[in-house]
Amino acid sequence: MKAGRLFIISAPSGAGKTTLLQMVMPRMERLVFSVSHTTRSPRPGEKDGADYFFISRTVFEEMRDRGAFLEWAEVHGKFYGTGRQEVFAWLEAGVDVILDIDVQGAAIIRDSGLADAAFIFISPPGLAELERRLRGRAQDAEETILLRLKNAEMEMQAIGNYDYLIVNERLEEAARVLEAIILAERAKMRRLPSGLPAQQQGGL
Amino acid sequence: MKAGRLFIISAPSGAGKTTLLQMVMPRMERLVFSVSHTTRSPRPGEKDGADYFFISRTVFEEMRDRGAFLEWAEVHGKFYGTGRQEVFAWLEAGVDVILDIDVQGAAIIRDSGLADAAFIFISPPGLAELERRLRGRAQDAEETILLRLKNAEMEMQAIGNYDYLIVNERLEEAARVLEAIILAERAKMRRLPSGLPAQQQGGL
Repeated sequence: MKAGRLFIISAPSGAGKTTLLQMVMPRMERLVFSVSHTTRSPRPGEKDGADYFFISRTVFEEMRDRGAFLEWAEVHGKFYGTGRQEVFAWLEAGVDVILDIDVQGAAIIRDSGLADAAFIFISPPGLAELERRLRGRAQDAEETILLRLKNAEMEMQAIGNYDYLIVNERLEEAARVLEAIILAERAKMRRLPSGLPAQQQGGL
Repeated sequence: MKAGRLFIISAPSGAGKTTLLQMVMPRMERLVFSVSHTTRSPRPGEKDGADYFFISRTVFEEMRDRGAFLEWAEVHGKFYGTGRQEVFAWLEAGVDVILDIDVQGAAIIRDSGLADAAFIFISPPGLAELERRLRGRAQDAEETILLRLKNAEMEMQAIGNYDYLIVNERLEEAARVLEAIILAERAKMRRLPSGLPAQQQGGL
């Protein structure tokens, strides 16, 4: 059986990543969203076990120290980590996995060479539009907004390390592109170490 | 402005390539189909200037000798060629171009390094199904069918040189994948010689 493929998705807060994923996930088969662990507090509407596993700093550190995370990072003073075992179990079962991680975590996965992954960056049309969106959702304090904008500017510098860029100007169009990237990656020829194309193994 | 992207599509006769293209082309914007030149006779329903430019062997040889073709090849004893000028004019205008060429022609384009292209192979679910389809359309003589089957088997050997493989089992699903590949390739980061990502030039 063909192994699943890993999709790494990064975006500055406010780029619309969560909404996009909520639109695209139900449309696709053979695709799961890897729920990360975090020490930050849930935002209104976020569910434990669905959006994140919300855990204490103590639990996070215990997991980190026994190597339970594929990658982990500190962002905005909070910890985020991706469970290692769960991801590889899905991939081995032939299911594609989406990881929603920041640019630091993405860089760790890329450099580790642990898994062959497609890297997707979702960007707002521009920083001015991002500021408008962050203020529009009115759930953050002024200093949080300024911190997010500063971080967004930094994160944008990492775009060059991604395979795909989706500029989220119109939501439906961006969702169509994200779906297209997943389908196209599935149709991509994957070469085995021997140089033989992997998809020929099934026998034509 | 961003240059257009070249899509090279190859398939054994009977894989359903023509039908797929007829389904996908009207759904996409900023995409043209490059009409090839051929010395073979039109099949029922084929239109000169739409499916191919049907030209004589003399005209073909004259064009070939003055370098008017990006690639040309002899297949099943007939000549096929892709007009050079037309393709580059579209690409420079920022329009994506689909070339429908056989595996020999595709290899020439790939080796020439003339243009950055995505290579797509469309395959029937298997050779037995291909034979069924070729006999089903009942427009070819027995020896033509056998020749096509033999060629298909040879062409299948070239799959490893392509970036994408679409197994055309269900037409609508295959069309969705072809469309997805085109959209995904447009979202792909294209690096400039300087190492800067091309898409950042527009300014985020």
